[in-house]
Amino acid sequence: MNKLYKAIIENGSVEDGNIIRVDSFLNHQIDVEVLDYVGQELFKRFEGVKVDKILTIESSGIAIAVIAARYFKVPVVFGKKTESKNLDKDTYSEEIYSFTKDIYYNVKVSKKYLSQGENILIVDDFMAGGNASLGLIAMVEAAGAKLAGVGIVIEKGFQAGGDILRRKGIKLESLAIIDGKNEEGIIFRPN
Amino acid sequence: MNKLYKAIIENGSVEDGNIIRVDSFLNHQIDVEVLDYVGQELFKRFEGVKVDKILTIESSGIAIAVIAARYFKVPVVFGKKTESKNLDKDTYSEEIYSFTKDIYYNVKVSKKYLSQGENILIVDDFMAGGNASLGLIAMVEAAGAKLAGVGIVIEKGFQAGGDILRRKGIKLESLAIIDGKNEEGIIFRPN
Repeated sequence: MNKLYKAIIENGSVEDGNIIRVDSFLNHQIDVEVLDYVGQELFKRFEGVKVDKILTIESSGIAIAVIAARYFKVPVVFGKKTESKNLDKDTYSEEIYSFTKDIYYNVKVSKKYLSQGENILIVDDFMAGGNASLGLIAMVEAAGAKLAGVGIVIEKGFQAGGDILRRKGIKLESLAIIDGKNEEGIIFRPN
Repeated sequence: MNKLYKAIIENGSVEDGNIIRVDSFLNHQIDVEVLDYVGQELFKRFEGVKVDKILTIESSGIAIAVIAARYFKVPVVFGKKTESKNLDKDTYSEEIYSFTKDIYYNVKVSKKYLSQGENILIVDDFMAGGNASLGLIAMVEAAGAKLAGVGIVIEKGFQAGGDILRRKGIKLESLAIIDGKNEEGIIFRPN
């Protein structure tokens, strides 16, 4: 069993309200061994795909993106959820709904860091309704860049995001897809 | 010249309003080579110091923390700035003022992830007024954990944070201290 599945089974939980708790190793406390496995595995899943840059969204996505970027040997750019004095005025921006926080963010990426013709890999910790990925994809398109694919650590198979992306023909690689839980524990979709 | 100084000189700038812009390689777009140098160098600066866990604050700190954690071989915990359905109710929390965003955040860390007796290294991308570090230090103390030190990528030497920490006798390691700028460019404090 791989390190991610092991960590999910031993330390994760599926809770009421479609919440998957992995805060002991992925999105509050971070186990760097699991994280490093995630980076390597994303690299493997996109072998042969041209990737010039990795795009993610703050905050949890940053950890995934920088570890993956070490293997891809490309820069990371992360979308910002709040205004900041050190962000350019000239940005791509998208309204993105956060399921876990139940608010809309106006996510921004400086136009300097997404360029026409670049091959962009989007990565994130979770895929739920797909709002974050679809927002980032819209920015990639607005920049005239090319989408290399989307790499996700945990896809909530019981929410629509993954299927929305697959139906669009996007190369989506989710390292674990969780379909729910039963008395025996977490139900993983077979690979 | 090390990779961090080189990146600051070639791609950074000191702007009006005490803003240091390093968004092309550190806190919006991230150059993983520079980041990896930062992780290695923080590890070197804390050689011989017992570190059980690295604590940082979302968002930019996360990239620094996870790369450093690969060298220290310890977990990362990051303080959360917003409420979330997947955060425990039982948290350490501190009001922290963000200079670049000009707002107060109520930063929270789950009590599960800071424990009595643990040796905690705090890392962050910037040290300005010291608010973020002082808030995180207060959480370390509230948990009965021990502060191993504070590792910062860029300290704004013209703001008070660094000296406040040094006067408290805290082991503060700032990889670059910027004292301002003149016609010749950015002024680094000699090591």
